[in-house]
Amino acid sequence: MFRFAPETTPDQIELMVEGLRSLPGHIPEVRAFTIGRDLGLREGNWDYAVVADFDDVDGWRVYAADAVHQQVIAEQITPIITERTSVQFEW
Amino acid sequence: MFRFAPETTPDQIELMVEGLRSLPGHIPEVRAFTIGRDLGLREGNWDYAVVADFDDVDGWRVYAADAVHQQVIAEQITPIITERTSVQFEW
Repeated sequence: MFRFAPETTPDQIELMVEGLRSLPGHIPEVRAFTIGRDLGLREGNWDYAVVADFDDVDGWRVYAADAVHQQVIAEQITPIITERTSVQFEW
Repeated sequence: MFRFAPETTPDQIELMVEGLRSLPGHIPEVRAFTIGRDLGLREGNWDYAVVADFDDVDGWRVYAADAVHQQVIAEQITPIITERTSVQFEW
């Protein structure tokens, strides 16, 4: 989950979304991938969520280390967010 | 996503998990429900995640307002967490 910096523009968010959307087609270890902007239904929410499913931890490791993913993080995500957190869990 | 207070015990977490797991069977609007504790693979992660799918915003509203859910939040979640955030998104 991300929280956007207040000065973030719609164009910057669209570029981030394009970058994120490119990942499942590029990283076969990604089994499911849903992303989206907060709908504004609830106080205290953050701004954006990414939910990615993998068969196992190794699949996640491939995704986490992928060079294109790292480029999206460095160029399209990090510059526009003030907070980021994640949880990896098995189910 | 939640971050647990440092003094949280395994028993308290187990009670929270039991409370959460009771929700999909009790609230038919919940279409998918995956929860789990962070695996500790990454620095800066939070401790627990809940991912719930609904057909639409109205389904989420039923879940959010449900009395049993509210009781789980008040009795099993709020007492053991220091931070909580969420994102509701359409996909």
